[in-house]
Amino acid sequence: MEIDQHYRALSVETFSQRLGEVEAVASRVGGEPARWDIREVGDGNLNLVFIVSGDVGSVVVKQALPYVRMVGESWPLPIYRAHFEYYALVRQAKRAPGIAPEVYYFDKPQALFVMEYLHPHTILRRKLIAGERVAQLGETIGQFCARTAFRGSELSLSSPEKKQDVGLFSGNVAIPAITESLVFTDPYYAAEMNHHTPELSPVVDELRRNARLKAKVQRLLMKFTANTETMLHGDLHSGSIMATDTDVRVIDPEFSQYGPMAFDLGMAVANFLMAYFSQPAHRQESELAAYQTWILDVIEACFTSFDAEFRHLWQTERTGVLFPKALFEEQGNSADDACDALLDEIRLDALAYCGIEMHRRVLSLAHNADFEEIEDPALRAKLEARNVLMGQALIMEPEAYGDLSALMELAKAYSQREVL
Amino acid sequence: MEIDQHYRALSVETFSQRLGEVEAVASRVGGEPARWDIREVGDGNLNLVFIVSGDVGSVVVKQALPYVRMVGESWPLPIYRAHFEYYALVRQAKRAPGIAPEVYYFDKPQALFVMEYLHPHTILRRKLIAGERVAQLGETIGQFCARTAFRGSELSLSSPEKKQDVGLFSGNVAIPAITESLVFTDPYYAAEMNHHTPELSPVVDELRRNARLKAKVQRLLMKFTANTETMLHGDLHSGSIMATDTDVRVIDPEFSQYGPMAFDLGMAVANFLMAYFSQPAHRQESELAAYQTWILDVIEACFTSFDAEFRHLWQTERTGVLFPKALFEEQGNSADDACDALLDEIRLDALAYCGIEMHRRVLSLAHNADFEEIEDPALRAKLEARNVLMGQALIMEPEAYGDLSALMELAKAYSQREVL
Repeated sequence: MEIDQHYRALSVETFSQRLGEVEAVASRVGGEPARWDIREVGDGNLNLVFIVSGDVGSVVVKQALPYVRMVGESWPLPIYRAHFEYYALVRQAKRAPGIAPEVYYFDKPQALFVMEYLHPHTILRRKLIAGERVAQLGETIGQFCARTAFRGSELSLSSPEKKQDVGLFSGNVAIPAITESLVFTDPYYAAEMNHHTPELSPVVDELRRNARLKAKVQRLLMKFTANTETMLHGDLHSGSIMATDTDVRVIDPEFSQYGPMAFDLGMAVANFLMAYFSQPAHRQESELAAYQTWILDVIEACFTSFDAEFRHLWQTERTGVLFPKALFEEQGNSADDACDALLDEIRLDALAYCGIEMHRRVLSLAHNADFEEIEDPALRAKLEARNVLMGQALIMEPEAYGDLSALMELAKAYSQREVL
Repeated sequence: MEIDQHYRALSVETFSQRLGEVEAVASRVGGEPARWDIREVGDGNLNLVFIVSGDVGSVVVKQALPYVRMVGESWPLPIYRAHFEYYALVRQAKRAPGIAPEVYYFDKPQALFVMEYLHPHTILRRKLIAGERVAQLGETIGQFCARTAFRGSELSLSSPEKKQDVGLFSGNVAIPAITESLVFTDPYYAAEMNHHTPELSPVVDELRRNARLKAKVQRLLMKFTANTETMLHGDLHSGSIMATDTDVRVIDPEFSQYGPMAFDLGMAVANFLMAYFSQPAHRQESELAAYQTWILDVIEACFTSFDAEFRHLWQTERTGVLFPKALFEEQGNSADDACDALLDEIRLDALAYCGIEMHRRVLSLAHNADFEEIEDPALRAKLEARNVLMGQALIMEPEAYGDLSALMELAKAYSQREVL
């Protein structure tokens, strides 16, 4: 991959010199660039992230590094991924207004963009570990997934517009391969970069011997890798959600690609379920049941608001190539059954993708703080085992849990099960 | 769409002046360009096609026109489609050697390429109307579909290679929309460019009132338009197949795009079935049964050789992202069941795509000579009705005909049915 010859990684030292003159930054930060407060806060896996504050306000600046930050220069990664993150943010702003951070400035050769500083929002994963509640969390995420799924698909877009956008995102050739191996393949064999809690090994071994499971996961990978139904966030876990008590925002779509409508929904729910299963390590007994119930309510709201919003858009914004009104409403036929059938399919695939995400977060490279911060390995393994086995049930037999009350019962049953 | 300023449509008069100096042409045709025999033979819907002959031999030259030839300049169509036809021919040559015509020369700005002159091959559709047999027809087409399906997918390709190729073909933004409307949507309402045999109207009306059918077709369109599983031929009907008694070749992949593995197979079988249903108008009673049986044998061979070749490639060439050996063979698990499950899915989708192609060829813009050349409209409508109703059965309930003997029985039953 060619890096633009003018590309230079930003640093706290060079920041105000390089971005002090950029109007989109200067006007929002205010005051003398030399006096800006500049902090590098990138705690993620891949990029530089700066928060810049001045007399007027703050902005966030994100720049791609030409390698995977958490691994180092030995794992090079094209900086053009920042272009796609920018393209994704712009599309999300249009398709689901008010959820993604607003983008103020984009510098393509430098693979950087400047965006809204979300304040006093914090990362949702921290809130879930801390036992905090967020109003309308499930509703907002379900609605966000439905809006981006519908409006990024040919239910909404014209054929050439969609093909052109798929072509644009296909330029992000190096990114999908990461999700493909880390999420779908590595968990199911002893891949080099994997790690898991040693006490979990009996469960892991059983999982990796399950040939039918692996075949189902690979079939879902085939859908993920080839099925360009809509533009995904691509990494919608609870570290990609920021919230206050009452406001929910979605950040970091750097793994955005065109993929199956069910993927983001499934990944978000998986992260709620992992929060759910990890709670016994983070809550007092007295608060545990109520908080776990709240998380299950979030999951239920996420699914139901996805369906409600998708159905609403189906009825009011179906202007694309697919299921055209000329074939249905204009011939006196309702298309509602077709919508319900599609939603049923999306839910089953979402449950299966959910199960896969539940696996990879305890078996593959990138783990979740929800489990990772549990210091007692025996307790960690016990809670992870429940999570892994529920994930297996969702992949093997999603049709048994399409009914949300069955899904809730399944989670409750596994949360009591003594696996290890 | 911008046309290159140097683009000029070829003509018989300007041909030798413009291509006489091109080595790839001159060496294969031979002799004085001014004495070349040049015939424009484009009988298709879209392009200029020349056969050029000289002392040494003959070549075929194909050039895109900036509009749909069968409709006229009122329907503009980007000439860049010829680039994608060229890209497809080159990939087919690699993935299924010996079937596509060899390409000798490509001139991108002129949207033209020079290729092998197939001789004494004739268009398969003419042979089927004339009652001629072609040895290994079903086997060759089934194998061609399996090889291109497998080797153009991430069962074979690396993730970045596949994404890059999908990106390349996404540039062909204007072509998929044609298939999407002409094949999947127009047949099911009174679209402007449609026409059908007037006597067929009762059957057509019933079809267009079938909301469940239309929903199923649109779900298949959603797969077609978004599911970039492999590089398709995209228009594999019997007018895109040329043959002698013993040799089968596939031409004209100008509708090539990345799409579902089942599509080409389904379209090819549909055209064999339309040949089958139209036979009573073209054969003497004494030859009819034997020739129809031969066509059914071709269909069966097409499916079984697709499966056999796909299974063979699965076992010997599974080098891509999907179903990696690290998860199966290297862990002592066979992946054969996963292959069979995928083949079952492909067959069901192929049957449904087959049904759709059977519809659009008698209801939409581009009809088949098999039916179109039947002069008696009552007879034509009667035979078309059997074809349309079998198509409907395949779309509504493909799982009932995944077993090939059930499929053969269905065809035989409809070929006797008095519908009109």
